[in-house]
Amino acid sequence: MPQPGLTIWLTGLSGAGKSTIANGLSSELRERGHPVEVLDGDVVRTNLSRGLGFSKEDRDTNIRRIGFVAELLTRNGVVVIVAAISPYRDVRDEVRERVGRFIEVFVDCPIAVLTERDSKGLYRKALAGELDNFTGVSDPYEEPAHADVVVDTSSETAAQSVTRVLATVAESGLLPPAPDDDGEAPQASR
Amino acid sequence: MPQPGLTIWLTGLSGAGKSTIANGLSSELRERGHPVEVLDGDVVRTNLSRGLGFSKEDRDTNIRRIGFVAELLTRNGVVVIVAAISPYRDVRDEVRERVGRFIEVFVDCPIAVLTERDSKGLYRKALAGELDNFTGVSDPYEEPAHADVVVDTSSETAAQSVTRVLATVAESGLLPPAPDDDGEAPQASR
Repeated sequence: MPQPGLTIWLTGLSGAGKSTIANGLSSELRERGHPVEVLDGDVVRTNLSRGLGFSKEDRDTNIRRIGFVAELLTRNGVVVIVAAISPYRDVRDEVRERVGRFIEVFVDCPIAVLTERDSKGLYRKALAGELDNFTGVSDPYEEPAHADVVVDTSSETAAQSVTRVLATVAESGLLPPAPDDDGEAPQASR
Repeated sequence: MPQPGLTIWLTGLSGAGKSTIANGLSSELRERGHPVEVLDGDVVRTNLSRGLGFSKEDRDTNIRRIGFVAELLTRNGVVVIVAAISPYRDVRDEVRERVGRFIEVFVDCPIAVLTERDSKGLYRKALAGELDNFTGVSDPYEEPAHADVVVDTSSETAAQSVTRVLATVAESGLLPPAPDDDGEAPQASR
């Protein structure tokens, strides 16, 4: 077995900025020479979970599938970045347990700000009662009780969030040395 | 990105010996220092495809999901061994195309021999018309048109099949050097 990788799991409401932060993390970590895979909730729904709906049971199944893939990649040395609403605490904790090397990132943003941004008009629709199973409005979102890091995208830029997540990852000691690591501290090269 | 791995895809009827050969390949390749993951059809059904049935559409979806995971692992340096009936040629070819670094192994065995072995009595039941969607009897099996290697488990031992598959893999040039490769030919250490 190669040196194991880790999973960085971004949970949070739709529109909070999970994908943007995931892509920022991916660029930064690839640049440092790490093998990286991003598992984005929407892409995974297409490839692993087409046909599943948005009941708790179906959402949990979707998250377990992402967890299964994250586990396989993580134990083979990949830095896996998951961007998925993943609204339920119990199944997130189950996946954390299973993957082992795991950093939970809560991508937080108040509903009021998300409704302001709301490029697709989904929050307004959900708040008007026209959209069922919309997480945070007409469907539950259980905030992490013990996130490794919380980023607030209403008060910080994506770049700032990325930097803070990377600092948490560095502190965790879970990130294996990059194959082309020059031995300098990550900050030194920026 | 690390050096890419490859996918060794075992297709064939139920009971033909896919899992046995997959485990033999896995032991041998791990011993040589390669990172290996076995994706067994039954395990994958539990983790990625619970709820899918055995229509062509559902079987194809199951195979595409295995292909998605195989692709992610392969491009990150893992030797992926898939053991799945995968009865339809078109979707096997689609997955081969997608994964790129791919060896197709046809695990062949005549129905008569499988019916003799038939530890679970499934072939007898299927031949008696009591089991729908049983591949090779009451459901199609499309033999590979261009398998990279065909092993006949009615006339060779599992160990012989494993050796022949490994020879094909070696000839393909797709296997990356193992991290702890001592530079000797694989046969030299056996």
